[in-house]
Amino acid sequence: MTYFNIDEIHNLNHLYKINLINSCAGFKSANLIATKSAENNTNVAIFSSVIHLGSAPPLLGFILRPTSVPRNTYENIMETGFYTINHIHENILKDAHHTSAKYNSNISEFDVTNLETDYKNNFVAPFVKNSPIQIAMKYIEEYDIKSNNTKLVIGEIQGLHIKNDLIKEDGFVNLSEANIATINGLNGYAIPTLKERCEYQRPIK
Amino acid sequence: MTYFNIDEIHNLNHLYKINLINSCAGFKSANLIATKSAENNTNVAIFSSVIHLGSAPPLLGFILRPTSVPRNTYENIMETGFYTINHIHENILKDAHHTSAKYNSNISEFDVTNLETDYKNNFVAPFVKNSPIQIAMKYIEEYDIKSNNTKLVIGEIQGLHIKNDLIKEDGFVNLSEANIATINGLNGYAIPTLKERCEYQRPIK
Repeated sequence: MTYFNIDEIHNLNHLYKINLINSCAGFKSANLIATKSAENNTNVAIFSSVIHLGSAPPLLGFILRPTSVPRNTYENIMETGFYTINHIHENILKDAHHTSAKYNSNISEFDVTNLETDYKNNFVAPFVKNSPIQIAMKYIEEYDIKSNNTKLVIGEIQGLHIKNDLIKEDGFVNLSEANIATINGLNGYAIPTLKERCEYQRPIK
Repeated sequence: MTYFNIDEIHNLNHLYKINLINSCAGFKSANLIATKSAENNTNVAIFSSVIHLGSAPPLLGFILRPTSVPRNTYENIMETGFYTINHIHENILKDAHHTSAKYNSNISEFDVTNLETDYKNNFVAPFVKNSPIQIAMKYIEEYDIKSNNTKLVIGEIQGLHIKNDLIKEDGFVNLSEANIATINGLNGYAIPTLKERCEYQRPIK
């Protein structure tokens, strides 16, 4: 196996280091977070850091890098209190990835890609049209992470739109059936096929 | 599409709700966190919440549920300050999933499964043998998440062991080449195949 100690990691060149360390947590979720400013400017940006925090209440979190593209996302959330999370699937992968380009806040990624807004149930923020899972989110709280100046933003699910046939009898949502993507490192994409569901485990007597 | 509003989500039966909401963030990472207590009892538990926080310094986080199985993981980390993160691959999937069973802290999951300890470079915590990516971690800090009483635990990478041929020229690690797993919901597993790496994006002029 190849071994890197902490000093070697610190001394890697920037691009090599971000490629390496970004792959280290394993496969990541692939989502578009969409928002609207108080002045009605829309914004949509790709995130690979959306995580499940709990089901009761239904909470999701994501990590915001202070120096990265999606600052408009955060500013809009602060202005309105709401945002949407939309799963990235095979057909919108290229456009979703393009939202990582650094556009000024007066340019909406909805205008420079084929991604389209989708407004539902009077929710303030737009959803991404044809996304198989569209989640209406309300900002709840945030934590400033001292060790690297990032931020964990936490929201509560207000509404959940899921393509009909993905939901199974017990509530399980088969992401593979909608060709939903996962992210490897900074820029690798896969469309996983579900292999199996394992049973609830009890200790071996 | 099927729609659930927040009241409907709150009123779902427990199992349906945890299956549904656990699928909502998208695909999740699949890791085994291994630890050793001050009294040399080993512990290994499956986590689907390991996330990349930053590359400089190299930081990973994970979410701990106060009521869930892996409390021994946390207690051991508090005692020694160190732990390992080991990627789950196809060949150890069943054993990895079995670590979710609720064993007493005096029983090591290394003893009741085919998972084996692997000690390297005098690091205090064991790695999981044959895992294609084994990461030595040092505890840095934690955040108590008020909205649902979970905890974000943050650690710094101290050492990184990666199967040789997975690392590409620019530092990218191809997780698919090691048959590394991803998790869908509570108990769904997939072994993704890398589809493509997209280029760095700049605004369209």
